[in-house]
Amino acid sequence: MPVEITSRKNDLVKEMLHLSDSAAYRREKRMFAAEGARLCSDAARSGLRIDSLLYTGRAGEKYGSYLDAIRKASPAEYLVSQPVAAYLSGTRSPQGVFCVCAMPETGRPLPAAAKTLLVLEDMQDPANMGAVLRTAEALGIDGVLLCGSCCDAYSPKALRASMGAVFRVPLLRSDDAPAAVRRLNEAGFTTLAAVPDPSAVPVTSLRRGRPTAAVVGNEGSGLTRETQRACSVRVTIPMRGRAESLNAAASAAILMWEMTRAEAGGEGL
Amino acid sequence: MPVEITSRKNDLVKEMLHLSDSAAYRREKRMFAAEGARLCSDAARSGLRIDSLLYTGRAGEKYGSYLDAIRKASPAEYLVSQPVAAYLSGTRSPQGVFCVCAMPETGRPLPAAAKTLLVLEDMQDPANMGAVLRTAEALGIDGVLLCGSCCDAYSPKALRASMGAVFRVPLLRSDDAPAAVRRLNEAGFTTLAAVPDPSAVPVTSLRRGRPTAAVVGNEGSGLTRETQRACSVRVTIPMRGRAESLNAAASAAILMWEMTRAEAGGEGL
Repeated sequence: MPVEITSRKNDLVKEMLHLSDSAAYRREKRMFAAEGARLCSDAARSGLRIDSLLYTGRAGEKYGSYLDAIRKASPAEYLVSQPVAAYLSGTRSPQGVFCVCAMPETGRPLPAAAKTLLVLEDMQDPANMGAVLRTAEALGIDGVLLCGSCCDAYSPKALRASMGAVFRVPLLRSDDAPAAVRRLNEAGFTTLAAVPDPSAVPVTSLRRGRPTAAVVGNEGSGLTRETQRACSVRVTIPMRGRAESLNAAASAAILMWEMTRAEAGGEGL
Repeated sequence: MPVEITSRKNDLVKEMLHLSDSAAYRREKRMFAAEGARLCSDAARSGLRIDSLLYTGRAGEKYGSYLDAIRKASPAEYLVSQPVAAYLSGTRSPQGVFCVCAMPETGRPLPAAAKTLLVLEDMQDPANMGAVLRTAEALGIDGVLLCGSCCDAYSPKALRASMGAVFRVPLLRSDDAPAAVRRLNEAGFTTLAAVPDPSAVPVTSLRRGRPTAAVVGNEGSGLTRETQRACSVRVTIPMRGRAESLNAAASAAILMWEMTRAEAGGEGL
């Protein structure tokens, strides 16, 4: 029988809340807390190291196959009471499944065959971040590089919005966006600065077959000038309506689509 | 001097909360409540009928030019105390500007020159709805048709996420999605059922120049079978990653992009 946790003052419970609440603490520990049967089992199936699994008795009955997948990756499991689950949860109707995971390593070299990358500079909204990672996964983007003051991809909101894509899309981090862009240029990438400027090159004019990185900026203020200058070319999504209406997640979706569309050789037009 | 409201029990305050909380009440009254200097002035500038403007003293000093635009469209204005503004607000740091607006008429005939439409069936999430309307506006989609059990585009969350696009994009409503699709077919539209099915026609194969409506379904379950059957063709966004990872807002963005891209005659590929 797993050990039972019934107190909010339990050390593991306190640790998990700290991990949920503080990006700085997550970075320091290189750990994060995940919630939900599907998300936790996604983490396990993606090969992340899991430290602890926590679940309620009800969740034990309901999510057996998910829990089995998590158990295989976790050295420790705990039963938690319903009130502790409610205390730990960021949602109104918690499923009662939680785990503590190790972040996958970042700073890895890019996959040698990488042809399509997304670079985000200073993206602030965790829901946007999660949505963008989901889209990157669906479209088969080879990696996402988070630069500057991007929000943390392992916050509860970003994890939830990413639907586990954060575990599967190769993620890299760099504090210095212009320097990261210059390294991509040197590695043979065409780096596309996404700007809402009708005089920039339309994204429909991308040439096929070359390694390409789309660089997308902050939700409110866009790319910094330094990063724009570091990029090989300024590109824009031709719009008929108000430019400000295309939000960062939609812009990133269309840019990633155009990169992979060009890569796949979109037919029929 | 405008009349001052300092009580939460004021009839107008109660009316506004009711409008914010209940989609049924909004439908019955054909009115909604909007919050925020920019959003309220967007409503006024878009030609909506405004019944009342409410603002705090602080907002009066800070948002003068926005308030002037709203005043021109509003027959009545009220000063509200800070506590009443906090009570009315759906946000943590309220700007202190509110108005009560009449919904624009729906059920209008489509613009005769309409060439690109988006049809949503059973879209449930107001943030998705707002984001989709924003993208529709940016890309110059001619109209959006909300079908079946779509969430209300005038809820506080949808209004906020749409950044006012809800006032500017022609919006129509229909309870019966398959019937609406059949009417579009009869009007000469190619209706595209968006499905995550690799055997469907790739969206990259769209032919140019024909009036086209993209039909997008519920976030979890997609389009109903009846609606799929009513459409002229089943189309899909070719994906390399996990199909389930492309969420409804991202799918709709890519479909609308492809429609307008084809319309504009995307060059360079």
